[in-house]
Amino acid sequence: MTTFNFQYDLVAKDHNARAGVFHTPHGDLLTPIFAPVGTQATVKAVTPAQLKEIGVTLVLANTYHLYLRPGADLVAEMGGLHHFMRWDSPILTDSGGFQVFSLAGMRKIDEDGVTFKSHIDGSIHRFTPEKAIQVQEQLGADIIMAFDECAPPYDRAYNQQAVARTHRWAERCLAAQTRPDQALFGIVQGGIFPDLREQSARFISSLGFPGHAIGGLSVGETKEEMHRTLELLNQILPEDKPRYLMGVGSPEDLINGIRRGVDIFDCVLPTRLARHQAAMTRQGRLNLMNAAHARDPRPIDEKCHCYTCTHFSRAYLRHLIVAKEMLAATLISIHNIATLVYLVQDARRAILEGTFEQFAEEFLAHYTLPEKAQA
Amino acid sequence: MTTFNFQYDLVAKDHNARAGVFHTPHGDLLTPIFAPVGTQATVKAVTPAQLKEIGVTLVLANTYHLYLRPGADLVAEMGGLHHFMRWDSPILTDSGGFQVFSLAGMRKIDEDGVTFKSHIDGSIHRFTPEKAIQVQEQLGADIIMAFDECAPPYDRAYNQQAVARTHRWAERCLAAQTRPDQALFGIVQGGIFPDLREQSARFISSLGFPGHAIGGLSVGETKEEMHRTLELLNQILPEDKPRYLMGVGSPEDLINGIRRGVDIFDCVLPTRLARHQAAMTRQGRLNLMNAAHARDPRPIDEKCHCYTCTHFSRAYLRHLIVAKEMLAATLISIHNIATLVYLVQDARRAILEGTFEQFAEEFLAHYTLPEKAQA
Ligand SMILES: [Zn+2]
Ligand SMILES: [Zn+2]
Repeated sequence: MTTFNFQYDLVAKDHNARAGVFHTPHGDLLTPIFAPVGTQATVKAVTPAQLKEIGVTLVLANTYHLYLRPGADLVAEMGGLHHFMRWDSPILTDSGGFQVFSLAGMRKIDEDGVTFKSHIDGSIHRFTPEKAIQVQEQLGADIIMAFDECAPPYDRAYNQQAVARTHRWAERCLAAQTRPDQALFGIVQGGIFPDLREQSARFISSLGFPGHAIGGLSVGETKEEMHRTLELLNQILPEDKPRYLMGVGSPEDLINGIRRGVDIFDCVLPTRLARHQAAMTRQGRLNLMNAAHARDPRPIDEKCHCYTCTHFSRAYLRHLIVAKEMLAATLISIHNIATLVYLVQDARRAILEGTFEQFAEEFLAHYTLPEKAQA
Repeated sequence: MTTFNFQYDLVAKDHNARAGVFHTPHGDLLTPIFAPVGTQATVKAVTPAQLKEIGVTLVLANTYHLYLRPGADLVAEMGGLHHFMRWDSPILTDSGGFQVFSLAGMRKIDEDGVTFKSHIDGSIHRFTPEKAIQVQEQLGADIIMAFDECAPPYDRAYNQQAVARTHRWAERCLAAQTRPDQALFGIVQGGIFPDLREQSARFISSLGFPGHAIGGLSVGETKEEMHRTLELLNQILPEDKPRYLMGVGSPEDLINGIRRGVDIFDCVLPTRLARHQAAMTRQGRLNLMNAAHARDPRPIDEKCHCYTCTHFSRAYLRHLIVAKEMLAATLISIHNIATLVYLVQDARRAILEGTFEQFAEEFLAHYTLPEKAQA
């Protein structure tokens, strides 16, 4: 296998916001970038062709889920994840750590790794740093993650211990890697504690990973704590490597993350909300089940140029929802993903033009937070 | 509204098989043709863009369902069914008769019409020939159906009475029609009884409809009885009008129907089978849930050029099914619809080349009927 040079070119900076290019074996990623999630090797209800049409270039898949079903050996035998799910642009896999640690009461952690029960059939499995790398090498994504321990954000003692273990595991992951065509990212932990975050960012940065992920955010802390942590990490993480904020993806979080030096985002939110009849827009969320939309000939968003908005009315989408038609999830997912992809594309343009701060201010001024919206 | 000339051009005949062109306000239909069913103004799990890519030109929608939900007045207010569901090619609506008569224990028939209970909320409604036309005019399809009575195929007394009533209702439908841009088809009934079928075909043909539908088949009679009935009707129905065999759509039934002079078919089979993990091929059905497909890198059908077969393996499709992913229904639906659309296109080509009998024989020789296939 040929060695790939995972270079990140920082093209422009506007305050702390960054526009860059990250080179991968399946093509260049223009950052900032949003990746929809294909948990089980499919972005739910959307075809790869529809993702391409939106302009998606990076998709995330979950190692834990694919390891259990259909199995990483099967995916490898079918030519790897790109060929299996027919996504010829870059793919990112997580390490499985987050899912495994979330299996409360079904997992046992020790220094060497985690033993856990499958949520599907209760069978017993074990992930170690080496195993997480081996599985991700079988899946074959362009960007893979170190196996880390994610602690509850406010538990200082646990975070202290989790940071230390994450660091030891990061070194083991680096040592375990055999494929030279996958960019292995190290993960920074430390909850809401600035000293732990700083310690973690300095140590992980020292290991020479081609990119850095920020774990343990958007897991229960306040927005202010998330922002403060990002601001701190922005000062420590090296400028010439991409920064990936894991599991974050509401419109306001994207803008606030870009503002604080983040380059890569992923989230299940656009497809999950779509399956619950909620459309994402730059003004806030829209519940399409609402009776007010029954005879509304307008699209979800008159300014959106996605397939859904250029073809279908709110009245039609509401009809599909009421009639329990699968097409509702497909069309709303297309729009929601497009909303985030276009938003991040516009943010990039603004960074290149040096107008990002103004762009962010205007966006946040017009955006109604979900918790503040009318029911 | 401008009057449209619903002309049918018989382009070629090969024995009894016909290749023609039926002109409609939303474009020409090349017959023989297969129409997928969009019961609730959506072909389940498939977007209009995906239908276009397959080469679908005609879609059927159900008057009964759309009348109840979202309501024909709402569809009319949204610009009619073409605009509502964003299908700019021809649409055919049934009259609602078949669904209403199928509501056993929930409907009462009299000479003037049928009173029935909604299957959704139990509310009381009434369809008459005039009402069925009015609703179909609100929906605005290119091809609409007369309101008919469909009797059980072997009940002679009921069929005798149903034929007479269907004839009286056909005249009332013609009188009720006000839109000159919709082709109203008369429906032939008569169960398995040749004399009733002949009587019905002669009477309905005499009324000057621009096309004729064959009702009351594929409702419990044998294949031999269906074929005999089609052969009889083929001799009576005028050659210069299209013939539509309602609700029929397995590959073998399409070929057997074309062989006996049928031009238009519709069926829920391709999308319904797709939601039950069954793929249609020219050799027979394939249960994709079968463990034999778990590591099979081949597409459903190596000769099929649909999106699904040119991109995805059986192993991937089986994974989607096992993982209960919605994309399974979408991808298998695309393939199943494509199978019928391509089959009918090939049949048309064979008719034009004068090789249809050979084409039909070869097809039937290689096709395994579902009831004879291995479980
Ligand atoms: Zn949109
Ligand atoms: Zn196919």
